[in-house]
Amino acid sequence: MNPDQAYVELVRLSRGETVLTSCLELLEWDEEVCMPRGGGEHRAEQMALLAGLVHDRGTDPRYGELLSSVEASPLVSDPESPQAVNVRELRRGFDRECRMPRRLVEESARVAALASQTWAHARKQDDFKTFAPWLDRIFALAREEADAVGYVGPRYDALLDDFEPGMTTDRLSALFTHLEAQLVPLVASLRDEPTPAPGHVLAREFPLDRQRLFVEGVAGALGFDLQCGRLDVGHHPFCTSIGPGDVRIALRYYPRNFARGFFALLHEIGHALYDQGLDPAQYGTPMGEAASLGLHESQSRLWENLVGRSHGFWQHFYPQLRSAFHEALHDISLETFRRVINHVAPGLIRIQADEVTYDLHIMIRFELERALLAGDLRGADLPGAWAELYQRHLGVTPKDDRTGCLQDGHWSEGLIGYFPTYTLGNVYAAQLFAAAERAVGPLEEAFADGDFRTLRGWLGEHVHRHGQRYTVAAIIERATGSAPDPSALIDSLSHRYGSAR
Amino acid sequence: MNPDQAYVELVRLSRGETVLTSCLELLEWDEEVCMPRGGGEHRAEQMALLAGLVHDRGTDPRYGELLSSVEASPLVSDPESPQAVNVRELRRGFDRECRMPRRLVEESARVAALASQTWAHARKQDDFKTFAPWLDRIFALAREEADAVGYVGPRYDALLDDFEPGMTTDRLSALFTHLEAQLVPLVASLRDEPTPAPGHVLAREFPLDRQRLFVEGVAGALGFDLQCGRLDVGHHPFCTSIGPGDVRIALRYYPRNFARGFFALLHEIGHALYDQGLDPAQYGTPMGEAASLGLHESQSRLWENLVGRSHGFWQHFYPQLRSAFHEALHDISLETFRRVINHVAPGLIRIQADEVTYDLHIMIRFELERALLAGDLRGADLPGAWAELYQRHLGVTPKDDRTGCLQDGHWSEGLIGYFPTYTLGNVYAAQLFAAAERAVGPLEEAFADGDFRTLRGWLGEHVHRHGQRYTVAAIIERATGSAPDPSALIDSLSHRYGSAR
Repeated sequence: MNPDQAYVELVRLSRGETVLTSCLELLEWDEEVCMPRGGGEHRAEQMALLAGLVHDRGTDPRYGELLSSVEASPLVSDPESPQAVNVRELRRGFDRECRMPRRLVEESARVAALASQTWAHARKQDDFKTFAPWLDRIFALAREEADAVGYVGPRYDALLDDFEPGMTTDRLSALFTHLEAQLVPLVASLRDEPTPAPGHVLAREFPLDRQRLFVEGVAGALGFDLQCGRLDVGHHPFCTSIGPGDVRIALRYYPRNFARGFFALLHEIGHALYDQGLDPAQYGTPMGEAASLGLHESQSRLWENLVGRSHGFWQHFYPQLRSAFHEALHDISLETFRRVINHVAPGLIRIQADEVTYDLHIMIRFELERALLAGDLRGADLPGAWAELYQRHLGVTPKDDRTGCLQDGHWSEGLIGYFPTYTLGNVYAAQLFAAAERAVGPLEEAFADGDFRTLRGWLGEHVHRHGQRYTVAAIIERATGSAPDPSALIDSLSHRYGSAR
Repeated sequence: MNPDQAYVELVRLSRGETVLTSCLELLEWDEEVCMPRGGGEHRAEQMALLAGLVHDRGTDPRYGELLSSVEASPLVSDPESPQAVNVRELRRGFDRECRMPRRLVEESARVAALASQTWAHARKQDDFKTFAPWLDRIFALAREEADAVGYVGPRYDALLDDFEPGMTTDRLSALFTHLEAQLVPLVASLRDEPTPAPGHVLAREFPLDRQRLFVEGVAGALGFDLQCGRLDVGHHPFCTSIGPGDVRIALRYYPRNFARGFFALLHEIGHALYDQGLDPAQYGTPMGEAASLGLHESQSRLWENLVGRSHGFWQHFYPQLRSAFHEALHDISLETFRRVINHVAPGLIRIQADEVTYDLHIMIRFELERALLAGDLRGADLPGAWAELYQRHLGVTPKDDRTGCLQDGHWSEGLIGYFPTYTLGNVYAAQLFAAAERAVGPLEEAFADGDFRTLRGWLGEHVHRHGQRYTVAAIIERATGSAPDPSALIDSLSHRYGSAR
């Protein structure tokens, strides 16, 4: 078989593996959104089986032979060609997958399915005790995974690398230290700001059926294609891509917490637009996949905050919002509403956090998941450690685990090393948004006119369509003119929230 | 490996194959109930891939070796032991599967996924032309399948055998000839009956939201466990079992056709109770699977008709129905309502047909699908042939294809040879219901008291729990004292609808 034929065969194998993985995505989506409680154990068996089959395909020795054959050929001489990119990334995935024992892959899938069901129930009942042993099991499996794939620095690096290729614990620690130094004074300076009673406005009643209608309208206006996607109610907000033409968002709505549901929509829309902006012709190969989770979160955080908290956005949408929720908002001006949704105050819930304190929530999780992974913290002791860190960094203490360590589902799904990608996303988002404005002019004005296409087009051109053609650092540098750097984030926050505003 | 070890391994392989097949079931359910239109092509790829993998597992030469090893051992000496039953049925499946080319399996799954989407859209638009070429493709694949698995008599037998083991075209032809001879005079004698204006009552407005609430209540009362299942809205009514603890019903509701949605519920409840009544400990082996599609339809038809059209059933439910739909039913007595829902009149729609004419609808499909399979009828000519047979046997002619040959989705899903199992189901149901009454006393009285557990218990004991331990004929004979025989059906219809009533 010559290298051209080998490459064609490699692409065929990669597509098959991706399609099989997409069946697993559907099982997960269904588990969160549709599955009756009684189906939980069987679901875990389905997931374990499919995860094992995906692993078999991903470690097929033929894969290795084909890769070697193409790697030694002129097909990959231009490192930015689709062939070179796909071979580079397939090799990365193949080498990692080959180091994973099949038993561990199956067991991790089974445990994630059962643990996430237990978590959803435990959160509802505020019953951390039933979840704690699962947490230990999940971190034990994560340790096994890290040891299997190997690492040079801290063990946590092995997990991180799966979400953000090349990222290290040390670089993240430095990033958080830097951010904390900048953010803590900014938060402190805002403590003296008069509170516009945000609780009062947003805790008014926003009927659920009208929230759903409003959310669907906004999703469409921002460019989410409902012929090629769905909006559902799930235990927690998430976005998943089943395949080209099928990108699904799940949300939770709260009758007396409009902002929580709504900003989650904007967040997931950012993810969905990235997935819907990938090149469907490259589906099933790295060229058709998102470059990293950090870059994915840059899209979600960008739409959630830089778009969704802007004056222009609400100039466009506030009249509609006020008419949909007249009882709640009839006496609230656009300016008051914006002050309310942009109010900075340390709080307990990550996905409700303002932009300034948000990264402190992530920093806490970064610290805790490393302690859990190292075995320095046991699952049973998490609530205490959680409370201590929230008190230390944010000055607040959860009154129960629902608003404490049970609030996020990531760990229950086996996602260890995921949280830092939100902060990386914030860093990239600030750089990308500033670059977009330099390129296309003030976006606030476009938003005020209901034009979200301009921004979407710029992001599609500079981020989405590339898939994994470049590394994340290269994508950021090509799009913004600078390597990844937190200064744009600090500038953006200081400008919009600090005394300079 | 000794036969005991071989048997354990065989069960493990069978379970794995069943779990993998259950992932395919979820993909199908999702396609019907959730999937956005844009996801259709990708879904077809997913289904083709999984169908291919199921085939690989089902034809694994190891399977054959293990079967041979156990077949030659004393483990299977008692033909009613779980070991003997599982080995017998796994052998049947293995031999059939080994004769199927992999390419055909994948292609059939792909075409079924795309064709059923096309059908759903074509029916909505009353656009038979776009569906016609798919019909030809599906029947061409069915021919290939039949030729691959082989047959002795007519080619159609090869397909029939997959749904109803051992059933033949000849036996079915004789059954339909017999039924037609008995039913046509019965239908004719009822033509002179005064019409209680069924259209008027059932075409009144039954608001959809209240239909859904009522249906959920009835489903629960009949014993459908919503912790272990779901009720959804789909393109057409169906029931699917994703696995133990996860049995799902999809329904369509019509604001001005209460009976159509409601009797579909009862039908699907019958299927669901069978699935929920199988022994979960035997899941993944023939001992944990339904004995045949005919027996499955006996359960659906029994609950739909022998329970759901009975006086006792409505003595219990009519007060609730009338209070839920007061505007529609305030002037309609229980007796009038029962006359309306039991009115016999030849019509166009199978799932709306009364019990007496129902089997004539099946007979027409039995004739048409054999002609399509033989190639004597082309897809494009189906509407004409359909109209002709409906005119000949039922004296009615559809005014469009929506109420004609586009009404059922079975063919679009590649289910050729399925329709006759409804009539077999009617035959078995009449025998089973009569036997249940002989055993536990008049069921009408139990129904009037809201007791559906007695019947469910009897069916569980005599039908559901056996799985495939016995052949269908043996299950019927053990449960009723007689071999399968249409006389109980004719007796039941004559008694309830004829001059003798």
